[in-house]
Amino acid sequence: MSNRHKQNQDTQRLKRYLKENQSRFVKELCEYIRFPSVSAEGRNSRGVAACTKWLVAHCRNIGLDVQLHSTQGNPIVVARTPRKKDNQKPHYLVYGHYDVQPPAPLELWKSPPFEPRIRGTSLFGRGASDNKGQHFAHLKAVEAYLKTNSDLPCELTFIIEGEEEVGSPSLSGFLQRNAKLLKCDAVIISDTTLCDLRHPTLSYGLRGISGLEITLHGPSRDLHSGMFGGSIENPAMALCQLLSRLRDQHGRITIPGFYDDVLELSPFERMQFENQPFNLEDYKKELGVPELFGEKGFTPVEQRSARPTLEINGLTSGYQGAGGKTIIPSWAKAKLTMRLVPNQLPEKVQAMVVEHLKSVCPKTVRMEIKLEHGGEPYLLSPESDKVQLALESLRSTFGHEPVLAREGGSIPIVNDFKHILHADSLLLGLALPDDNAHSPNEKFNLEVFAKGMLLSADLWQRLAGSFVNANR
Amino acid sequence: MSNRHKQNQDTQRLKRYLKENQSRFVKELCEYIRFPSVSAEGRNSRGVAACTKWLVAHCRNIGLDVQLHSTQGNPIVVARTPRKKDNQKPHYLVYGHYDVQPPAPLELWKSPPFEPRIRGTSLFGRGASDNKGQHFAHLKAVEAYLKTNSDLPCELTFIIEGEEEVGSPSLSGFLQRNAKLLKCDAVIISDTTLCDLRHPTLSYGLRGISGLEITLHGPSRDLHSGMFGGSIENPAMALCQLLSRLRDQHGRITIPGFYDDVLELSPFERMQFENQPFNLEDYKKELGVPELFGEKGFTPVEQRSARPTLEINGLTSGYQGAGGKTIIPSWAKAKLTMRLVPNQLPEKVQAMVVEHLKSVCPKTVRMEIKLEHGGEPYLLSPESDKVQLALESLRSTFGHEPVLAREGGSIPIVNDFKHILHADSLLLGLALPDDNAHSPNEKFNLEVFAKGMLLSADLWQRLAGSFVNANR
Repeated sequence: MSNRHKQNQDTQRLKRYLKENQSRFVKELCEYIRFPSVSAEGRNSRGVAACTKWLVAHCRNIGLDVQLHSTQGNPIVVARTPRKKDNQKPHYLVYGHYDVQPPAPLELWKSPPFEPRIRGTSLFGRGASDNKGQHFAHLKAVEAYLKTNSDLPCELTFIIEGEEEVGSPSLSGFLQRNAKLLKCDAVIISDTTLCDLRHPTLSYGLRGISGLEITLHGPSRDLHSGMFGGSIENPAMALCQLLSRLRDQHGRITIPGFYDDVLELSPFERMQFENQPFNLEDYKKELGVPELFGEKGFTPVEQRSARPTLEINGLTSGYQGAGGKTIIPSWAKAKLTMRLVPNQLPEKVQAMVVEHLKSVCPKTVRMEIKLEHGGEPYLLSPESDKVQLALESLRSTFGHEPVLAREGGSIPIVNDFKHILHADSLLLGLALPDDNAHSPNEKFNLEVFAKGMLLSADLWQRLAGSFVNANR
Repeated sequence: MSNRHKQNQDTQRLKRYLKENQSRFVKELCEYIRFPSVSAEGRNSRGVAACTKWLVAHCRNIGLDVQLHSTQGNPIVVARTPRKKDNQKPHYLVYGHYDVQPPAPLELWKSPPFEPRIRGTSLFGRGASDNKGQHFAHLKAVEAYLKTNSDLPCELTFIIEGEEEVGSPSLSGFLQRNAKLLKCDAVIISDTTLCDLRHPTLSYGLRGISGLEITLHGPSRDLHSGMFGGSIENPAMALCQLLSRLRDQHGRITIPGFYDDVLELSPFERMQFENQPFNLEDYKKELGVPELFGEKGFTPVEQRSARPTLEINGLTSGYQGAGGKTIIPSWAKAKLTMRLVPNQLPEKVQAMVVEHLKSVCPKTVRMEIKLEHGGEPYLLSPESDKVQLALESLRSTFGHEPVLAREGGSIPIVNDFKHILHADSLLLGLALPDDNAHSPNEKFNLEVFAKGMLLSADLWQRLAGSFVNANR
């Protein structure tokens, strides 16, 4: 039997296995989503412990060698395909995260966030697409290889961490400690956006992130606004005035130096962005906004993926209950994050913002700044071999011409893979734009789930084939 | 026995009774404070029902004729001195309120808000000074008259309502329905500030109030700030920009027309204000603020009592929990109140603000405005006979020259007394500036409590004497 013939047989067997077991896979994914593995709730919550226990057992059942690496925070699940001695196959990492965003506000969920339900062609639940469903597709593809005794042309190591939603504080240390074990030819990550089923997507860039929390302290306690109002600063007003001046009417961030390191978009990139499906009216309707707003001179696709932003994520001050309370609040707080683009550096931007805030904060309040986690932006050349092979795999699996995109979100650890393991990351997103990541009613499209498994099964053939051709 | 001799005997007996029973009065006041009669929690809460039951029984024990008038909201306690036929005595109303502000934030209280404790010379608890303790002093003075069979030279009606902290929505209807019964020669209200024990205070003006709640609606749900950030408006930022422009760097409200109806202060008034004890450093220290801030061209005393303000009472948007959540919030909300001065009208100002907000609100968000209760400012001529008699009473009771002040707070119903009953209100505050009204650790000074009872006992003699002299 020729290699080619064997490979065709394998492919058919893999596809059959994935098809025949699809409904079991969905049930298993539901089990996985049931765990409230919210990392923002702190270290090793009950939801996290139960989730990792389940995940470890599941990976073992698939046939993987599994280790649970404890960290200062939530543990990291490492699952490897069985190793043979004197192995010459290439080695790829598959990264995912089992932790999820907090489900609040609960009252907006149509079904409880941790009780997954299928409605239409989608599976609803917190973490369904971000990120449990996406890395589960890769796990199931490997299961197909192992359970059908098909020839997997590479070695794979899954790294599934539990702190992505809080900035992956433990991952870089883990990578450093295990750099030898994790030496690889590329990292595959499905944690980005798929434009739609007719536009399979490879993301070659990611935005970085930098966050901080500002608290303005005024009087030592909430004060009667009648007895004292007029003679002292209102910290909520001071906060509004401070924040309002960080962005102008053209959508430009006004912090001095903020755009200094921004790599301007090339004409090629801007053309690529125009290939992305985008309908202004549909977009407005989908998001429920009366009008769009963004930085002047850029399209919405560019604004949301390739331009830096400053967002207020939360505001807190004074009385928030029913009715009124006539006070001057003692303090006012804002949570801010900035999305950064190549070549902005989070620490540099953060320092810039802090310096600016200090210089403009009035003396009538005391400012407290808490710095949050940061992550660098990422950019991979769309010309590289691996990108070309992955594009082939997308084209073949989805039956449509893939698009090259930049992703507006941040996956800070992509830069850890780059700096620590010297490995490029291929970003093959399986979350649709309307999958409500970080929002109520998060979902995962089950057609995409099926395509994702096929993509994963196909990808190893192409990537590993390339490796052999390259005569390493 | 001459009238004068009888009156002296009465006075001595009253003073003795008040002195001998002081510790019992404090215990009774503690009982009264224990009821969590928070009106902001809605109509007829359990705390309110138990509180009014206790108050009615207490007034009956004193010897008053008591009626509980039900309303659309919380009931009004009406307690009258026993009536004689063909009575020719003058009739005064004493107004107070048994409802209290919400106690939040609870964690800042040194002792639980509804478990009154004495520390030093003060009684701590929510409602201790605002307003339970203050009208309780008047109740105890009347008790002294009734229990010692002293000659009360007037008729008194206590009106103790349960909705002052939510704008007294039921009181004006009640006054209208009972205008004949409540026809009176003046209203006495102790719900304002006493500068200190050496500066007994009569307030001849009050600020009015006007409130609203603004919600800016952006996307139909919280959105991932990476996937969408940059291409749509952030409602929290839009709210900050909207609010920030309502006040300039000189502390002036920038709403067109806002100052049009403001009656400027006379030189006499500004001189009166300078007689008030005020120490800048002590004030800053007492409030815990690094610097003062207020409208340019006015002293802090003027700013806080005789100039209009616009305050943010609360801000709510997005994620407020621990850690971060990288979202664009779906909405952002602010609670605002304005303090108004003569001759600003709440409805007119509110309409002005709404029109202004509508004209400046960006089209990228949808604005929702909820109008809150309003109250007119109040001004009484300091030259009037009743004011002079009340000043005499203050001078005699406290042994110090009283000060004429304007009060920064709002007692909207003072204008109802004026418009419906055609009666002036004498504002004889018994709350010290540091009594933490509306704040955690609210308290009531027990020396002031004692003086307040003596003041009340003395006041009826002088006011009624004036009435006789005036040959009504």
